[in-house]
Amino acid sequence: MKLAIVFGGESYEHEISIVSAIALKKVISCELVYIFCDKNRDFFLIPTDEINSKRFSSGEYLKDRKLSLKKGGFYTKKLFGIEQKVDFDVAINIIHGADGEDGKIASLFDFFGIKYIGPRIEGSVISYNKLFTKLYAKSLDVNVLNYEIVTQKNRKISLPLPVIIKPLRLGSSIGVGVVKEQDELEYALDVAFEYDDEVLVEPFIQNVAEYNIAGCKVGKNIIYSTIEEPQKNEFLDFEKKYMDFSRTQKVFEAKINEVIYSEIRKNFAKLYNSLFEGAIIRCDFFVIENRVFLNEINPNPGSLANYLFEEFDSVIQSLADALPKTKKIDVDYRFINEIQSAKGKA
Amino acid sequence: MKLAIVFGGESYEHEISIVSAIALKKVISCELVYIFCDKNRDFFLIPTDEINSKRFSSGEYLKDRKLSLKKGGFYTKKLFGIEQKVDFDVAINIIHGADGEDGKIASLFDFFGIKYIGPRIEGSVISYNKLFTKLYAKSLDVNVLNYEIVTQKNRKISLPLPVIIKPLRLGSSIGVGVVKEQDELEYALDVAFEYDDEVLVEPFIQNVAEYNIAGCKVGKNIIYSTIEEPQKNEFLDFEKKYMDFSRTQKVFEAKINEVIYSEIRKNFAKLYNSLFEGAIIRCDFFVIENRVFLNEINPNPGSLANYLFEEFDSVIQSLADALPKTKKIDVDYRFINEIQSAKGKA
Repeated sequence: MKLAIVFGGESYEHEISIVSAIALKKVISCELVYIFCDKNRDFFLIPTDEINSKRFSSGEYLKDRKLSLKKGGFYTKKLFGIEQKVDFDVAINIIHGADGEDGKIASLFDFFGIKYIGPRIEGSVISYNKLFTKLYAKSLDVNVLNYEIVTQKNRKISLPLPVIIKPLRLGSSIGVGVVKEQDELEYALDVAFEYDDEVLVEPFIQNVAEYNIAGCKVGKNIIYSTIEEPQKNEFLDFEKKYMDFSRTQKVFEAKINEVIYSEIRKNFAKLYNSLFEGAIIRCDFFVIENRVFLNEINPNPGSLANYLFEEFDSVIQSLADALPKTKKIDVDYRFINEIQSAKGKA
Repeated sequence: MKLAIVFGGESYEHEISIVSAIALKKVISCELVYIFCDKNRDFFLIPTDEINSKRFSSGEYLKDRKLSLKKGGFYTKKLFGIEQKVDFDVAINIIHGADGEDGKIASLFDFFGIKYIGPRIEGSVISYNKLFTKLYAKSLDVNVLNYEIVTQKNRKISLPLPVIIKPLRLGSSIGVGVVKEQDELEYALDVAFEYDDEVLVEPFIQNVAEYNIAGCKVGKNIIYSTIEEPQKNEFLDFEKKYMDFSRTQKVFEAKINEVIYSEIRKNFAKLYNSLFEGAIIRCDFFVIENRVFLNEINPNPGSLANYLFEEFDSVIQSLADALPKTKKIDVDYRFINEIQSAKGKA
């Protein structure tokens, strides 16, 4: 099998997508093709054996072969204007944040008929917008923290301090701030409003126990990863998370009791099914007074959370073989033909 | 101003999109360009003065100029392989159902930088999936009918009969059935499952009062349409609705009291803001015992619900001038450069 790693994008997480994509080289054994989406949304074919982060920061990639995305795949232009299709079996969407996790890449791939590992449109939109994630989780009886949404026009907060403030639509801790004292509030809001017109406010719980679990559905079964208790500072800031995206070392199972362990898995299965079919997602949970709460859903986690899986390589292969199929809709012009024939008789 | 009407799509509502697109010719005064997306998702430039429904049902459109969609717009191929961009200021997405209302066209236009009238990705996904519509409406304190979701695996219904059964993700009454007696249930479910793996069940209320209102936001203000009480049979079936999509005749304001009138507008404003900016949407409400309930949101209503507006032509023009802007995200490679420079020093 030949996999195409699609990365980059017009996103605040453009750079961590590059790091994430390069990390996959170490953990996937089959042949890889690298397709870079630059910040202007032009696509380039990057030679797999020459890939490194400097190629992108220096602009050197601009000399690589430019691709066009259209029906059926990515194409390179050859001499005399004849195009050649880039050969791969399945694409992996590893664009983080905007473009990759907001539904755009899913839509492009669905529209142009490209098979891919990654969240579909609905899963993207529901996980990208933190309000929609809350509504979705609550509809499944998955606990979430209290929250409120504030806008530029209405910056009033009713939750008691300390709170954590997040742009409604970004990942990777960008624009996120903790507010412990009243006089820190305005600044934290200003920072968050740099990234979104709507901001989510939640209670901030010092030293809350956090557990991450990843997984995907293959056929009727969910493959669960190890559950990890991530190392953290007060909360994961962007630079810490940036480094996190290049992780390839395996982790140890978190020390939790059986009830919590099965509760976390149960919640993961509820959230995954069937919205995220085709994707490897990571869900981050809090445990507070023995109750499990969803913090967030990452539909395209850093380097696909490979470090959480015992056998990541085979997970990827089996997922690639079990992607959701879209039903072909047939158009037969029955109604227009009926009208035409009625007109003919008139 | 020059507007491009984009219509067709791989959708069960492909044909009504054609009818809907042609109807717009009668109600928009500025220059129109017609771009057809056929059932195979190839695009064609249809001569505006020759457009009629038979051109599509007969396959005659295949002789029209083929277009490719990419960065900046739609392009025709000219002699010697040189491409020419189709000239227009703003596109109108008039693809109904799949492709047009599920977020795909919104994503394509956002990704390729095409200005358009139509729902954005989030608005599309929230209105296309009837469960998400319910969750969204409830979060805004807009009333919705009770409901349950059934799947092929779990076809049990707990709501008392009569119920109305709808595929979770289609518009235009396709696959919808009313179940009054227990022995009609299995057949109605079978029909709905033809179109979706998940099915929404709601109480069916005979002769419920229904009111439709359309509108859009221009600047800070919502332009509301007339509120119509639609003529209906038991419920709007597909053929009836199909005819509805070609409507261009103005309607009369429904006979409702002031409280209900302002309640309907208030609910519309809550639902519109800010999820549907850039689109003309139509919301269909029920009134039951003097309470207003949302039935559904049409983010791309038939022929843009032109018949509901006093001055449709000027609504379109002012909306086209006030489309939401997307923020350009700048990528400066700060983190990669820092790492590179740290490595250099090591």
